Amino acid sequence: MTESMARPATGRPEQRTARTAPDTRNGPEPRGGEGHEAAALLERTRAAVDPVLRTALGSLPAPMRRPALYHFGWQNADGTPAAGGSGKALRPALVLAAASALGGSAARTAALRAAAAVELVHNFTLVHDDVMDRDTTRRHRPTVWTVFGDADAILVGDALQALALRLLAEDPHPAAPAAAARLTQCVVELCAGQHADTAMERRAPDEVSLEETLAMAEAKTGALLGCACALGALYAGAGDTEVAAMDAFGREAGLAFQLIDDVIGTWGDPRRTGKPAGADLAARKKSLPVVAALASGTPEAAELAAAYAAPHRQEEVEELTRLVERAGGRDWAQTQAADRMARAMQEVAHAVPDPEAAGGLLALAEFVTRRTT
Amino acid sequence: MTESMARPATGRPEQRTARTAPDTRNGPEPRGGEGHEAAALLERTRAAVDPVLRTALGSLPAPMRRPALYHFGWQNADGTPAAGGSGKALRPALVLAAASALGGSAARTAALRAAAAVELVHNFTLVHDDVMDRDTTRRHRPTVWTVFGDADAILVGDALQALALRLLAEDPHPAAPAAAARLTQCVVELCAGQHADTAMERRAPDEVSLEETLAMAEAKTGALLGCACALGALYAGAGDTEVAAMDAFGREAGLAFQLIDDVIGTWGDPRRTGKPAGADLAARKKSLPVVAALASGTPEAAELAAAYAAPHRQEEVEELTRLVERAGGRDWAQTQAADRMARAMQEVAHAVPDPEAAGGLLALAEFVTRRTT
Repeated sequence: MTESMARPATGRPEQRTARTAPDTRNGPEPRGGEGHEAAALLERTRAAVDPVLRTALGSLPAPMRRPALYHFGWQNADGTPAAGGSGKALRPALVLAAASALGGSAARTAALRAAAAVELVHNFTLVHDDVMDRDTTRRHRPTVWTVFGDADAILVGDALQALALRLLAEDPHPAAPAAAARLTQCVVELCAGQHADTAMERRAPDEVSLEETLAMAEAKTGALLGCACALGALYAGAGDTEVAAMDAFGREAGLAFQLIDDVIGTWGDPRRTGKPAGADLAARKKSLPVVAALASGTPEAAELAAAYAAPHRQEEVEELTRLVERAGGRDWAQTQAADRMARAMQEVAHAVPDPEAAGGLLALAEFVTRRTT
Repeated sequence: MTESMARPATGRPEQRTARTAPDTRNGPEPRGGEGHEAAALLERTRAAVDPVLRTALGSLPAPMRRPALYHFGWQNADGTPAAGGSGKALRPALVLAAASALGGSAARTAALRAAAAVELVHNFTLVHDDVMDRDTTRRHRPTVWTVFGDADAILVGDALQALALRLLAEDPHPAAPAAAARLTQCVVELCAGQHADTAMERRAPDEVSLEETLAMAEAKTGALLGCACALGALYAGAGDTEVAAMDAFGREAGLAFQLIDDVIGTWGDPRRTGKPAGADLAARKKSLPVVAALASGTPEAAELAAAYAAPHRQEEVEELTRLVERAGGRDWAQTQAADRMARAMQEVAHAVPDPEAAGGLLALAEFVTRRTT
């Protein structure tokens, strides 16, 4: 259930695909779309934040630096330079977009370290989650623990969290302490979310409610997106009401993001997700569409529950995928994502009444859903 | 090689035992000694810092709170209250003693949160180290991962690091950002130390030098004791020179502490260490006395190397213990510890010329060595 998409290798924008055009949903990413604001924002974010991240990682002692640079896609396992990308940079883009929306370009510049800190926290949780979940592939490459072992993966995660908070501790900006307090609180919520995820995976499918699955997704994904937006607001000198609204915006967008990510995890193109198709189903993951399907009360729900309780078989993935779809899991997830996006838009309108100033935030929010809808 | 001693259950001070009185070295702890300043300082520290720690742990979501309270000895695995102690509180005592030495009682009071933060960092590393090292016993109880599983142990460690830095982020004291920066830098050094320890354990005994073993011990143990003292100095408003001297003092005392801890780990009383006698030898740990023995060039060194290369046998521990001792490993470690303590005393005299003001620091430094010498 962890976010699985890597950014397109070229960094080029994706074309918006119509919700009613399923024939293009799973195809290779269209390359022709130009001028998408989100893609430009993400690229600008990477250009601004990557140097801060590289300097931070470069300060690590060699035995931590290597797995860290490997995880970020900047080195191969043998320490040679790699051309791979370090991820979409959605979270730092949200920090910068929120700062910009509420405080203009000066706030955006001031928030660079905070943006890098949020990205470091995100990556520390990815490295640790992969150890716990025994996930072997991330961003099209073997995960850190499979290459460097569990101990070094735990250690490099610990070091990345420390680096994140060091960036804020060394930041003279008056918002830095409040940002650090919020980010540490968010780490605790991320841990609780990962715990809930792991605990839910051990339970029988019919013992897991949709409500707790949504709560888990909010803690595991929404919390950090909300924190990213709140940090941007803090660096813009925003008041408590705006900071809270930006947090709520990020949380709603984050839930939409996770819903779409789960849809992509089952119906997406493995070339884009970096994971084999249906890997979540084969691993009996209780993703949001699956839990919705199980809770649907349809005949397919009962079939799906029985199939989920049975051991893994060859070529079952297509059958499971069909059952989740026919039980309404896919439609539910896409409708939920649209609902969440609507709420997110309300929050951003509340905090940033000027649509032009809010443009970056809206573009990023759309980005997380336009991937399939 | 991780610090293994729990505080005496009664909290009563130990009697100083003469270095030349080996007959009392391994015996039960004498109870008659009264008025030892260090014991009083440690008890005063626990009384002041435990409420801060309990409030911090109490703020965790339930699934993180339980393993955290278990680890600190305040709850049993089933969540019922436990009477056990949470450790010696040496690190927070150093924070408070350094603050007091350089800034009096106002600085000591101001540094309470920093003291709790250092203790949280220490405990986060213990929980994670136990996962990596597969250690099953800590402070006379099963380790967190054996009770709650690897995933929850990793998560609670992550949450404890976040809590530590949250305490500093929410601390309005002007020294808090510099303290947080130093503490995060220390976490990275602790990670590097643990990496070196793990990597060294995988190598053949004759491939490990005494120099790198000492460097590892400094990173793994000295760094946090140095950081504790430096944080206390920062909260006293001390200048760079004093802060650096306090850091050096803590590092030297920390190395002495680790040397003595390794001695106790082999020759100490299991009732006090909480570990079976010779567990480090049975596990082929390259503790400081063992590496010194292997590097001694004595006939026993060759015998020890051969024995360390052979698989574990029943009743070999006594033989290995004798070899390390006859090759000079124990004497070397005790002499080194005395040397380190002398250097530590020089540093403290440099930063705090008034012996009365430095009293607490000196008492704590003596405490870490008087356990066997």
